[in-house]
Amino acid sequence: MDLFGTAGIRGSAETRVTPELALAVGRAVAAEVRATEAAATPEIVLARDGRVTGPAIAAAMEAGLASGGLRVLRAGRLPTPALAYASQDRYGVMLTASHNPPTDNGIKLFRDGSEFDREAERAVEERVANDEPPAAWDAWTESENVDTLDDYLDAVRTYAEEFGADLDGIRIAVDCGNGMSAPATPTVLRELGADVVTLNGNVDGHFPGRGSKPTPETLRDLRAFIADANEGVAEPGRPADGDAEGFAFGIGHDGDSDRIVIVDADGEVVHEDTVLALLAERYTRESDAADPVVVTTPNASGRIDERVREAGGRVERVRLGALHEGIATVRAAADPGADTRVVFAAEPWKHIHVRFGEWIDGVASAAVLSRLTAESSLDDLRDPITERPYRKVSVDCPDEAKPGAMERLTTTLPDAFADTTVDTDHGVRLEFPDASWTLVRPSGTEPYVRVYAESDAVDDLVADVETVVADAVAAATDEE
Amino acid sequence: MDLFGTAGIRGSAETRVTPELALAVGRAVAAEVRATEAAATPEIVLARDGRVTGPAIAAAMEAGLASGGLRVLRAGRLPTPALAYASQDRYGVMLTASHNPPTDNGIKLFRDGSEFDREAERAVEERVANDEPPAAWDAWTESENVDTLDDYLDAVRTYAEEFGADLDGIRIAVDCGNGMSAPATPTVLRELGADVVTLNGNVDGHFPGRGSKPTPETLRDLRAFIADANEGVAEPGRPADGDAEGFAFGIGHDGDSDRIVIVDADGEVVHEDTVLALLAERYTRESDAADPVVVTTPNASGRIDERVREAGGRVERVRLGALHEGIATVRAAADPGADTRVVFAAEPWKHIHVRFGEWIDGVASAAVLSRLTAESSLDDLRDPITERPYRKVSVDCPDEAKPGAMERLTTTLPDAFADTTVDTDHGVRLEFPDASWTLVRPSGTEPYVRVYAESDAVDDLVADVETVVADAVAAATDEE
Amino acid sequence: MDLFGTAGIRGSAETRVTPELALAVGRAVAAEVRATEAAATPEIVLARDGRVTGPAIAAAMEAGLASGGLRVLRAGRLPTPALAYASQDRYGVMLTASHNPPTDNGIKLFRDGSEFDREAERAVEERVANDEPPAAWDAWTESENVDTLDDYLDAVRTYAEEFGADLDGIRIAVDCGNGMSAPATPTVLRELGADVVTLNGNVDGHFPGRGSKPTPETLRDLRAFIADANEGVAEPGRPADGDAEGFAFGIGHDGDSDRIVIVDADGEVVHEDTVLALLAERYTRESDAADPVVVTTPNASGRIDERVREAGGRVERVRLGALHEGIATVRAAADPGADTRVVFAAEPWKHIHVRFGEWIDGVASAAVLSRLTAESSLDDLRDPITERPYRKVSVDCPDEAKPGAMERLTTTLPDAFADTTVDTDHGVRLEFPDASWTLVRPSGTEPYVRVYAESDAVDDLVADVETVVADAVAAATDEE
Amino acid sequence: MDLFGTAGIRGSAETRVTPELALAVGRAVAAEVRATEAAATPEIVLARDGRVTGPAIAAAMEAGLASGGLRVLRAGRLPTPALAYASQDRYGVMLTASHNPPTDNGIKLFRDGSEFDREAERAVEERVANDEPPAAWDAWTESENVDTLDDYLDAVRTYAEEFGADLDGIRIAVDCGNGMSAPATPTVLRELGADVVTLNGNVDGHFPGRGSKPTPETLRDLRAFIADANEGVAEPGRPADGDAEGFAFGIGHDGDSDRIVIVDADGEVVHEDTVLALLAERYTRESDAADPVVVTTPNASGRIDERVREAGGRVERVRLGALHEGIATVRAAADPGADTRVVFAAEPWKHIHVRFGEWIDGVASAAVLSRLTAESSLDDLRDPITERPYRKVSVDCPDEAKPGAMERLTTTLPDAFADTTVDTDHGVRLEFPDASWTLVRPSGTEPYVRVYAESDAVDDLVADVETVVADAVAAATDEE
Repeated sequence: MDLFGTAGIRGSAETRVTPELALAVGRAVAAEVRATEAAATPEIVLARDGRVTGPAIAAAMEAGLASGGLRVLRAGRLPTPALAYASQDRYGVMLTASHNPPTDNGIKLFRDGSEFDREAERAVEERVANDEPPAAWDAWTESENVDTLDDYLDAVRTYAEEFGADLDGIRIAVDCGNGMSAPATPTVLRELGADVVTLNGNVDGHFPGRGSKPTPETLRDLRAFIADANEGVAEPGRPADGDAEGFAFGIGHDGDSDRIVIVDADGEVVHEDTVLALLAERYTRESDAADPVVVTTPNASGRIDERVREAGGRVERVRLGALHEGIATVRAAADPGADTRVVFAAEPWKHIHVRFGEWIDGVASAAVLSRLTAESSLDDLRDPITERPYRKVSVDCPDEAKPGAMERLTTTLPDAFADTTVDTDHGVRLEFPDASWTLVRPSGTEPYVRVYAESDAVDDLVADVETVVADAVAAATDEE
Repeated sequence: MDLFGTAGIRGSAETRVTPELALAVGRAVAAEVRATEAAATPEIVLARDGRVTGPAIAAAMEAGLASGGLRVLRAGRLPTPALAYASQDRYGVMLTASHNPPTDNGIKLFRDGSEFDREAERAVEERVANDEPPAAWDAWTESENVDTLDDYLDAVRTYAEEFGADLDGIRIAVDCGNGMSAPATPTVLRELGADVVTLNGNVDGHFPGRGSKPTPETLRDLRAFIADANEGVAEPGRPADGDAEGFAFGIGHDGDSDRIVIVDADGEVVHEDTVLALLAERYTRESDAADPVVVTTPNASGRIDERVREAGGRVERVRLGALHEGIATVRAAADPGADTRVVFAAEPWKHIHVRFGEWIDGVASAAVLSRLTAESSLDDLRDPITERPYRKVSVDCPDEAKPGAMERLTTTLPDAFADTTVDTDHGVRLEFPDASWTLVRPSGTEPYVRVYAESDAVDDLVADVETVVADAVAAATDEE
Repeated sequence: MDLFGTAGIRGSAETRVTPELALAVGRAVAAEVRATEAAATPEIVLARDGRVTGPAIAAAMEAGLASGGLRVLRAGRLPTPALAYASQDRYGVMLTASHNPPTDNGIKLFRDGSEFDREAERAVEERVANDEPPAAWDAWTESENVDTLDDYLDAVRTYAEEFGADLDGIRIAVDCGNGMSAPATPTVLRELGADVVTLNGNVDGHFPGRGSKPTPETLRDLRAFIADANEGVAEPGRPADGDAEGFAFGIGHDGDSDRIVIVDADGEVVHEDTVLALLAERYTRESDAADPVVVTTPNASGRIDERVREAGGRVERVRLGALHEGIATVRAAADPGADTRVVFAAEPWKHIHVRFGEWIDGVASAAVLSRLTAESSLDDLRDPITERPYRKVSVDCPDEAKPGAMERLTTTLPDAFADTTVDTDHGVRLEFPDASWTLVRPSGTEPYVRVYAESDAVDDLVADVETVVADAVAAATDEE
Repeated sequence: MDLFGTAGIRGSAETRVTPELALAVGRAVAAEVRATEAAATPEIVLARDGRVTGPAIAAAMEAGLASGGLRVLRAGRLPTPALAYASQDRYGVMLTASHNPPTDNGIKLFRDGSEFDREAERAVEERVANDEPPAAWDAWTESENVDTLDDYLDAVRTYAEEFGADLDGIRIAVDCGNGMSAPATPTVLRELGADVVTLNGNVDGHFPGRGSKPTPETLRDLRAFIADANEGVAEPGRPADGDAEGFAFGIGHDGDSDRIVIVDADGEVVHEDTVLALLAERYTRESDAADPVVVTTPNASGRIDERVREAGGRVERVRLGALHEGIATVRAAADPGADTRVVFAAEPWKHIHVRFGEWIDGVASAAVLSRLTAESSLDDLRDPITERPYRKVSVDCPDEAKPGAMERLTTTLPDAFADTTVDTDHGVRLEFPDASWTLVRPSGTEPYVRVYAESDAVDDLVADVETVVADAVAAATDEE
């Protein structure tokens, strides 16, 4: 059985992530934990996002965990990063379908602040497949309610205060999208001194305001709100004399608050790679490690590499959805004496603030970024970052031709472009001297080969790459 | 599928009444209720007894009900009659295995204060068999905690005050057997004025004190406690001058408090039929109906009939575990103008106080009986009741011979005894002019025909009946 | 002691509405209720708005009520109208300072859905002054948590569905001001079919978004949001083909959701009297009473009278803050055979939907108005209402001269204007044939006589009235 | 103001320990803690025993603490030692009047597992006297529910397992007196393997079973129950072949479970000093300290000294109710190199198991004593302890003569008896070579000098001491 995708277990609550499945997974997790833990009755924190199907699935999950012998701490509704924080020194289950539509739900498993790795997921899958039975009756447990949000918010606030400057009176607009950031991000920012106005700050599992996924399109209310408020305002959102007018910037979260999108004072979405680059640079610069490393994914922009190198660090890439593996790999590969340290790990919209905790945390991103902009404004922060045009296209390729085509491309693609650095760990990625780049990799689910490119001349570059790819596909198809 | 036995669904929590089953039953109940109810979101109260496996099974049941679209009111731990009370004007689920060992659990379903009838149970079974799917996602509900015990205790107290006399200072010993009577019966009796001492009054799902089933054997601590305390005391448990010494009587409950056993001041268990007779007489006498009826079971003693007739009423019998059907049958058969009213329905240890509510209620029995004994002492109450010796024996009979044997016995048994009243509704029952009786009926689960008899000469009577039965079995076996 | 002002008890939580005061008031209320109620242990629902000081004051209130012998049902955070709804058939306490700043808190008492009348308040004041002691120890109670919001929301929705048309797809913007409307109004409107976007929908007792009082000024974000979104949109907020663009209108609530402000599609606040007139006309028109009456206050506009008369009813006025007295007075004065019925009672921003319940209910207003606008658009609804210019000025007048001045004005003011209808019940009010009007009344707290006027020529009218008033004040001052 | 007696604040809930007082004390504690703690918002655990007045006083205490700026963790009903355990690393408040009648209640304050010392109490008293005002509004807190009992029970069980032997099948009778030991002691003993039968195991704040104070008189039901059950049983409560019959011993607790009384297999109360001696010897013997010290009170028996010396330790005495001071004094006086360690501190019925925690803990006593008796039977454990007759008499002495009389006795009493060791730290205490002793000290509250003595010839000794005391009183009275 292949329960876990790249984003944990996720799907329709009516037909896939049902209470029945949650019960089975809970039982399996309990059995697996008890098989590997010395503690008599290990504890697990159980939380859910604001979805309509959350309470029933949580009850089923609790039934599975408790009849499997784990002691369940019911944490109610939480942002995913708050559950991750609460899972430290114990276990955690988060019921969320993140940015999926309201019909869906999902299951994420945590041990000591990190998501289960692939091996642990496989052990759970196996037990689910084998219909793990209940524990002996006298090992079943009774659950307890806990309230962990305040501790998390305090921790985020304290962590963020290590960066940037006080927010006193800066105005920020936050679009919570009716999701779980509502009781988190606005509160933290207010406690940090900001003047916060929220859009869609009422938690509602129907996601009536704008859907749960923050995109330039779904954030149009927020973007218009900011743009209009800032019209004719000299220093938007900054209290010069008297109260601030307009908004310094805007924040959009997804349904469970692991993702963050930043909207600038003109109402435009800041490119996700620019946000990464900005944080990556700062974490690299502030680290006192001899060899600071930023982990990111192949499709992430070269501007990240630029800024990290500028700050004295290096970038390692890992396949999408596998930031944890990347962190582990860097650590495992480190020379004992090299003082190598992962200072940040991120893929577009998703940031792991390693020193704070090894989970994706959009609330911490909101707090840290706000403190940074208070110090030097968002525009100043973006200024050193080169934002080149970016494109992504799909080239038709039958599934059976993918291996052959990729095989060919490892040589034909580098051959086609002079002066590039080649990386074939996750597809074929070429980086040009000016940090522009292209990446070619087969789709995991559809009959395409994907081409990504970022360059001042992106259209030309994509056209050139497409030609090489099409040739490779044709040759591979003929071979079949 | 045949989920429901005579006592609802009951069995090992590890292998039969598992969280998986509870989830399935919850879903089925929800679907069935929604199919038959006009209310947008019908409410159901969910409670459990003190068993170790209760919390996990309750969570699973909640998951099933909530994902089926019923709104769940979580009532926590309750005696079964308190849940029945709380189910009035809505629905109820009680998770209890009553007097079964701690490894077991069970499910009882209620609608408006009464257990589901056979037809409703069948509808649920069918949906369980068909893997009833979840409701549409936006019909799923979020549960609510409710606290219903105090209202029930107030109602029991108020009801009991209509009978007998004040308990001021009367001492009563209650053995709660670590079950759910602990927060109920002692409180009600104390509020009625009694001085209550409890044994095993701490709720513990391991039933460490004496097991969950109250029998003369398991109640030996209570019986010795009372007998010893009363040694040499003139009026045990009654405050003559100063405080009372000893105990007027004792009470034992099962794990979920539907059953009650009475122990007299000598430490002896009062015969269950005598307790029935005593209550049956009182309810008949106090009724102003023209035709008051007591419903009981075939194996219940003739002493009940004696007392009910004496009080101006009549007795109707119904098969074991089917008191509700009996009540319904009497009502259906009643002449429109006859003012027929069921005033009491009971089988050994289990009493339905019809005017208070149509569920088996051991707490109400405790309260009413205490008030009655305060008026005239337990001995006085028992005095008019004829307690004849009682025996029950089993005669070998292959399953396939049962129908033939019983057929024959409908004539051979009445023929063998002169001057009897014959009733063949539930086996063959003969009643003698002095109210002594015998009942012959096939076992439902084992290869026997059962013979019950109550008579001053019970050994002779049983011997005579056994002979007739053996002949009938032999004849029927030959025929096969 | 004069605890209760026109808005109940209200003031600084640090120095006036302290936990100490809450405990004393709770004790007093309990004693008073127990002195007047037959029920053994009357129940009282206790709720609070989202203020930071609410939990501690609620705990103190609970301590006072419970040690006074009332059974407390803790309802947590609620809008004030939801608490009023929950107080039906029992008692209620709402801890709220409504639209006051976050430093304040307050206490409102309810019996059976209505606020305590002056007599009941006085009885409480007296007991507070006399340091009401605790009840006997064994009458103290233990509290219970209840969840009453869903029932209220269902009731509002069901009630609103009697009016107007379905909201399917209409877009509405709601500014909750971080107050208790957040879990109420957006949910009800969404369930009625609207597409709701919220501002400041996260509950936060610091009221960071815009303060707790909705005024044209504090609602500037909402107004700009709507105005900008609607620029160039033909039918704002209405789904013609495809999804709606912009917003049909906007709603602003105060901190506890008794008040409502309506913002039109141009981002302008609709005059409070126009909203009253609109609802008053509808309720009058839909009533089948022979003599439908609308109760309002002296400073409320003549446009209300116009619309109510047009719809076949009449208006009665009562002093500010005394709508309940007004309702009672109309009922008491009604001819037995006249079929007089109060169909609506309101003062600016505050509406009592009498048929739904006798409390001020901004959530019900939101639901009913939304349904009405779905039927015929806000502009169409406003069209028949005459909105004349309105002014309010203050004329200096020493306190001691007020009685003399008002006495004189009862004759000098009518003498100064021909053809008016004079009403001297609450100050001196003149109504002109075209329904324009002026009202003169002494301030209760400051050394002024207030002049209100509404007229197409309001400046001239005010100038004329001011002259008459100044003369009366001068004459009265000389007399002193 | 002198709020705190030797047992914390205690008195009638109606007139002394009222909600008003609890609110004031809570406010004072919060202010004091915030004045001395670095943590932004220190946490305090709030619990209560089962008294009827507990919920209202807890609500008032919460109001005081929360409006004073402490974060309150509501732990519901607990035994006092469980609250002490939960107060480790933070603060704690226990609402209990211990063994007082049900009309009373009380307040005990804890910091990090220990009761407030005198200095901290004085600081609280002073703030109460000065009507400590609330904290600034935005420092007020919202409380949280916590469930701490299970952790405590686990800790007790784990600790007890370091002593004695397994309880498998040993039968023990526990009389919980309707107090807070009900959910604690029987559960721990059952988990340790015992077969537990409880008396009065239902928590009831009316203490209907036997009052809250365990004395030989109030424990008569328990004593008779054990004595009768053990009649004719060879090895009561021990499973030889098959199940055990009778009870190995019995346990009685007070209302909040800090006190413990042991009843032997004959139904007799074991002398409190014998229980002390037994535990003191064991703790001394098992300690690996070079200088193990047992702290007790002046009126505690010489048998303690005998056993402690035998085991290689020494005894230090401190005035009644001041065991914590005694522990602190011993530690302060210890030579740096001496490896002095307090291994046990106790006064009659109250035991501090220092290694487990520095609070009085009757549940831990029950667990440890049970494990010890499983190893060698209660009789064997008592065997080496010399139980001499004990008496306590009062000699009339006006308050004003007390200082003079005690002054004289410091010389006249030692002069009257040869060969004694004299200790004048807490009255005048003489110890004879055979460990028999006498103690003379003035009553703190009544016009008496108290004489305590324990000796094989106790009557003669008391008569002799009385004569000397009477002389001293006479002389002192003359002087006045």
